[in-house]
Amino acid sequence: MTKLPNINTNFSDWYNDVIYQAELVDNGPVRGTMVIRPYGWAIWEQIQARLDKRIKETGHQNAAFPLFIPESFLKKEASHIEGFAPELAVVTHAGGKQLEEPLVIRPTSETIIHSMFAKWINSWRDLPLKLNQWANVVRWEMRPRPFLRTTEFYWHEGHTAHETEEEAHAEVLMMLNEFVDLVQNYLAIPVQTGIKSENERFAGADKTYTLEAIMPDGKALQMGTSHLLSQNFAKAFDIKFQDREENVKHPFLTSWCGATTRLMGSWIMTHGDEKGLVIPPKIAPIQVVIIPIYKEGFIDSVNQAAEKISEDLKKHNVRVEIDSDQSKSPGSKFFKWELKGVPLRLEIGPKDLEKKQVVLTDRLTSTKQILDIDTVADLIPSILDELQKEMFEKAKKRMISNISEGEKLSDFGPKIDKESKAYKTGWCKSSECEKELKKYKATIRCLLDSKKFKECFNCDKPSQTDVLVAKSY
Amino acid sequence: MTKLPNINTNFSDWYNDVIYQAELVDNGPVRGTMVIRPYGWAIWEQIQARLDKRIKETGHQNAAFPLFIPESFLKKEASHIEGFAPELAVVTHAGGKQLEEPLVIRPTSETIIHSMFAKWINSWRDLPLKLNQWANVVRWEMRPRPFLRTTEFYWHEGHTAHETEEEAHAEVLMMLNEFVDLVQNYLAIPVQTGIKSENERFAGADKTYTLEAIMPDGKALQMGTSHLLSQNFAKAFDIKFQDREENVKHPFLTSWCGATTRLMGSWIMTHGDEKGLVIPPKIAPIQVVIIPIYKEGFIDSVNQAAEKISEDLKKHNVRVEIDSDQSKSPGSKFFKWELKGVPLRLEIGPKDLEKKQVVLTDRLTSTKQILDIDTVADLIPSILDELQKEMFEKAKKRMISNISEGEKLSDFGPKIDKESKAYKTGWCKSSECEKELKKYKATIRCLLDSKKFKECFNCDKPSQTDVLVAKSY
Repeated sequence: MTKLPNINTNFSDWYNDVIYQAELVDNGPVRGTMVIRPYGWAIWEQIQARLDKRIKETGHQNAAFPLFIPESFLKKEASHIEGFAPELAVVTHAGGKQLEEPLVIRPTSETIIHSMFAKWINSWRDLPLKLNQWANVVRWEMRPRPFLRTTEFYWHEGHTAHETEEEAHAEVLMMLNEFVDLVQNYLAIPVQTGIKSENERFAGADKTYTLEAIMPDGKALQMGTSHLLSQNFAKAFDIKFQDREENVKHPFLTSWCGATTRLMGSWIMTHGDEKGLVIPPKIAPIQVVIIPIYKEGFIDSVNQAAEKISEDLKKHNVRVEIDSDQSKSPGSKFFKWELKGVPLRLEIGPKDLEKKQVVLTDRLTSTKQILDIDTVADLIPSILDELQKEMFEKAKKRMISNISEGEKLSDFGPKIDKESKAYKTGWCKSSECEKELKKYKATIRCLLDSKKFKECFNCDKPSQTDVLVAKSY
Repeated sequence: MTKLPNINTNFSDWYNDVIYQAELVDNGPVRGTMVIRPYGWAIWEQIQARLDKRIKETGHQNAAFPLFIPESFLKKEASHIEGFAPELAVVTHAGGKQLEEPLVIRPTSETIIHSMFAKWINSWRDLPLKLNQWANVVRWEMRPRPFLRTTEFYWHEGHTAHETEEEAHAEVLMMLNEFVDLVQNYLAIPVQTGIKSENERFAGADKTYTLEAIMPDGKALQMGTSHLLSQNFAKAFDIKFQDREENVKHPFLTSWCGATTRLMGSWIMTHGDEKGLVIPPKIAPIQVVIIPIYKEGFIDSVNQAAEKISEDLKKHNVRVEIDSDQSKSPGSKFFKWELKGVPLRLEIGPKDLEKKQVVLTDRLTSTKQILDIDTVADLIPSILDELQKEMFEKAKKRMISNISEGEKLSDFGPKIDKESKAYKTGWCKSSECEKELKKYKATIRCLLDSKKFKECFNCDKPSQTDVLVAKSY
């Protein structure tokens, strides 16, 4: 392990270093692919478990659809193929022969899932149909970066069909709220929600809702999206049903995704510091690491005390590990577990045993507390909850300081780049004005609910809506 | 829904029908691919959850390795590429361009994982390294069949590295035992374990242990394998470590898999009957279906009673569903849930309410029991356990009756085909004699621990080991 690059002056290098040093990820042999190592995957499993539970509790069922999509399927919805064509990986040979029709590796699964919907949906009794799958998808990346942009990544994708547009819209908003809950209350990252502009929305959707987080470097990261597809895909894939009045209709479709391995990048960047990762307690695979301080003659008694606390913590459903490696010094262990971002460190040595105490240090503020050895396990669950909240509040403060307000792009445009800030401003809703943002490498991240600004950021026309504008990952 | 083909006279058609009618699976648009529908996937999730827990409890960690493997990697271990070449799917174009090196979609991940092991393993302190991943893999199938043989399927694969061959061998056997536990105690299917012959073992392995089940039609189904790879792959991928005496050595590797979506085919075939699926309680997503018998004036009271029992069952961690659709008759519901193989059906109607009773029917034997309404929920967990055991015992009896003993292939060979039986016999261990089995479409499924037979099934030489011989899926 080597010293991490300075997080304040060299954020990008810090990110690239910390993910490898903390053993979250490694590069795959094929450019743009990644190996998610056990420590990284264990965090992803925590995120998955929480979201999977909520997806089921909100009335969805998991299923599994094929990796391979006939190339012709993607062409059925015109704007869909236009959006995805440049990113596709294509299988042309299999079983020792050239294939008659090339197969696309799914970049997303609307087309293949809708082809099955067409088979399964016949009557209003078949609706709503609410499915989800956890899957790998492939989008060829020109500028790959572990977690943030990789050729293959992991996600879930929900796909639903409804009798009415109102019901479909309610589904889209319900899932958006679930994603906000996951990101804010589990990843401890504040988000801004809103609708995407026509240019930025999902290829083939009527309306795309998004949740956007602002990273410490002022760039936005899209944290999840929920799409009202309406009837576009239903028409393209000839999905029809007989409604309650016996009329034949197209159902209203939605699709959504609130967790991809991209989210891993978001908490790393939001919470990390000069010592390494800081993992929100709710998604930490190890919430407490116990470091026994060894001294000859006291090894067994210290180990026993550590084991006792560990057992007590497990009874409270706290995820705990004892680092009992006697070949390493306590100092090198502190360094290692700080790098790995474990929320709480509990030290216990011969002197502590004598005084019936332990030393508890939190990763977020490095505050040390001396606590009673017999009651520390009972206190830790609420200490973890408190830490979780503190992390969110800290991130929220920074997000607020990272978003400014600006009237005219000509004024604030240069600052987006130089001062690393996101801006709220007004927009006339014309595509021409939106294109002007490219000059500053920025985009409209989402339309906001508010209408504070009077004029468009670019032209003289009245603003139709406030928007959030930023560079993005 | 239509009548199922006769399971006794037309087993293959029965299988092909029941999987679709019970909504476990559907065909994907690309030949050989399958869509696993929610009911099928929920069963797979039960199997996954159990095995994942045991994989972790036995000291392994999950990770995720890329889908894409450079073609050159597969060629590094000579027998490995020879074994897999005919089944590969190849990506030749991506991101709008032809690739410099074609990418193989993983048929299994030894090569890519070992390329990472070479990077991560340097000292004996890095060992043992014990990883697992849940993944989709692709093997091009000429004669696909849902679950049993599909172009894309889902599995887990374990990959470990050890300092010594003994330790690697112990790992291989430990995981074999875990797989036996899963199959026998969760899927309720008896298995025969043993070593594969050189011809049948994994491409690149020193030794392949297998667990084989015999289906009702007398064909064997491989249920899992555990491979001692020894140093073949370690040499091919240049994995080296400094041992405790500071010598540079190759580690001893293993790989294993105890659950693929192929296992879904095994319990369907083993337990199914003329009415449809029979799901072992431990892997049933719905263990008890409650069917309220509606009559005007009693709808609310019947629903309340059903709800009360459902709540009580949930407290006992029983997976329960109430079928409260008032547009369907009880008879059509019985038919549906029998087809879907739910282990227990609980009926409750106005007359039952009056008598404070319910009617409980098990799917395996169709035995009806009248039970007290207030205590039925307490009794059900042990009734489910009992059913699980009965299913195993029933399957075991049939497996025994499906395996015969035979001295000479010329005698029993024709019976393998016509009478649908597996045979135990003796073998001299020569590849020439093994090849004779092809005449009867049979293979050596595994070498047995016993040595009962004196002569080889084919030649006059003494038998070296008993073997299990059968046709296979």
